[in-house]
Amino acid sequence: MGERSLLNQLIDALRCLPGVGPKSARRIAFYLLERDRDGGAQLARVMAEAMVAIRRCTRCRTLTEHDLCALCANPQRDAALLCIVEQPSEVVALEQATDYRGQYFVLGGRLSPLDGIGPDELGLNMLETRLRDEAITEIILAISPTVEGRATAQLITERAARYGIRVTRIAQGVPLGGELEYLDSGTLALAFAGRRDVV
Amino acid sequence: MGERSLLNQLIDALRCLPGVGPKSARRIAFYLLERDRDGGAQLARVMAEAMVAIRRCTRCRTLTEHDLCALCANPQRDAALLCIVEQPSEVVALEQATDYRGQYFVLGGRLSPLDGIGPDELGLNMLETRLRDEAITEIILAISPTVEGRATAQLITERAARYGIRVTRIAQGVPLGGELEYLDSGTLALAFAGRRDVV
Repeated sequence: MGERSLLNQLIDALRCLPGVGPKSARRIAFYLLERDRDGGAQLARVMAEAMVAIRRCTRCRTLTEHDLCALCANPQRDAALLCIVEQPSEVVALEQATDYRGQYFVLGGRLSPLDGIGPDELGLNMLETRLRDEAITEIILAISPTVEGRATAQLITERAARYGIRVTRIAQGVPLGGELEYLDSGTLALAFAGRRDVV
Repeated sequence: MGERSLLNQLIDALRCLPGVGPKSARRIAFYLLERDRDGGAQLARVMAEAMVAIRRCTRCRTLTEHDLCALCANPQRDAALLCIVEQPSEVVALEQATDYRGQYFVLGGRLSPLDGIGPDELGLNMLETRLRDEAITEIILAISPTVEGRATAQLITERAARYGIRVTRIAQGVPLGGELEYLDSGTLALAFAGRRDVV
C-alpha cells in the first residue's frame, strides 16, 4: 500500500500498545475496520479523552480524572486503614479481589537510588503528612517482596513508628495452584517459617 | 474504582481489540497512561479518523481512504496481471512478501451459500466486467485451499475461461520450517504430487 496511507498510519499507531508488533498491529487494524468500527470509534473517543484528562489523585496518587479519586472521595471507606501499593493497577486488582474497605496510597514505584527514585519520588512526605494528621490506625503494606520493595517497606515502617501506627504486610507464601516442586527456595522457606495451625 | 470512571471506560473500550480480555485491557490502559500518553493520543486520533474515512476501493475492493487505493491509482503497476485474494490484509501481506507488481482484486470472503455469501457478495460481477474490459492476461488465485476456497476458485476459473484468460494458483506444499512429521496428510499428498526437479 502507498507510503503513508491512513491504513498504514493506523497500523503504525497501534504499535504503541504493549506487546503489539507489526503483524499483530496489522491484524488488529483489519479486525477493527472489517468487524468492529463502532468499537474502534468508541475506543478512539475514550482514549483521546483519557490521555488528556486522567491524572493523579491529589490525596492517594492513583489515576483519576478528578482531583480526588472515587475511593478517596467516598466517605464510606474506612479512614483508619491505609493500604500502600506501588502502582495504580494494584488498587484496581485489590478492589476486585478483596473486600477491603479502607483507603489507599500509591507510591508509583520502589526506592531505587540508581534510577533516581528516592523518598520524594514516592511521595513519602505526602504520606507522612497523612500519617501525622489523620486518624490512621493500621498501614497495610502491599509491596512486592523484592530487594527494593523491602527497602521501601522498611522506610515506611520507620516513619509509621514515629506516629505509633501499626504496620502489617500482606502474607507471603505459596500462590494458589502453585506446585511446591517448582517454587523458588526463598518463597518455600518463607512459607515454611510462616506456617499456621490448621483449624 | 467508581462505577463509570474514565479509567474504567477506557478499560472497557479496550476490550473491542481482538484477543483482549479484562486483564489485558487493564494492563494496556495502565501502560498507556503511565508510560506512553503521546502514543495513546496519537493512536486515538488516527483510529477516530480511520474508522470513519476508510472504505473500499471502487476498483479492487481493498481498504483505502480514497476512491481508488494507492495500488489501483499507481500507473506503474502491471495492468495485465490480476491477483485475487480473499481479504485486504492479504494484499498487504503479498506486497510485503513478494515483488509482485500487478494489480489486485479483493473478494472479501469465500463462497458460502449457507452464510448468504454468493457471487454478488464477492463482487464477481465487478470482477467479470474487468475481465471483459481490461487487457488482463493472467489471473493469479491466492485463495485459501479450503472447500469454500476451492469452490470460489472454480467459479472464477470458469468466468476467466469465457475471456480466454490464463488462470494460475499460488503453490501448495510444505511451508518453510514445517516438519513433515507434523504435516497433515492432504498437504503432504499435494506436496508429493507437485514435486519439482532439483536444479
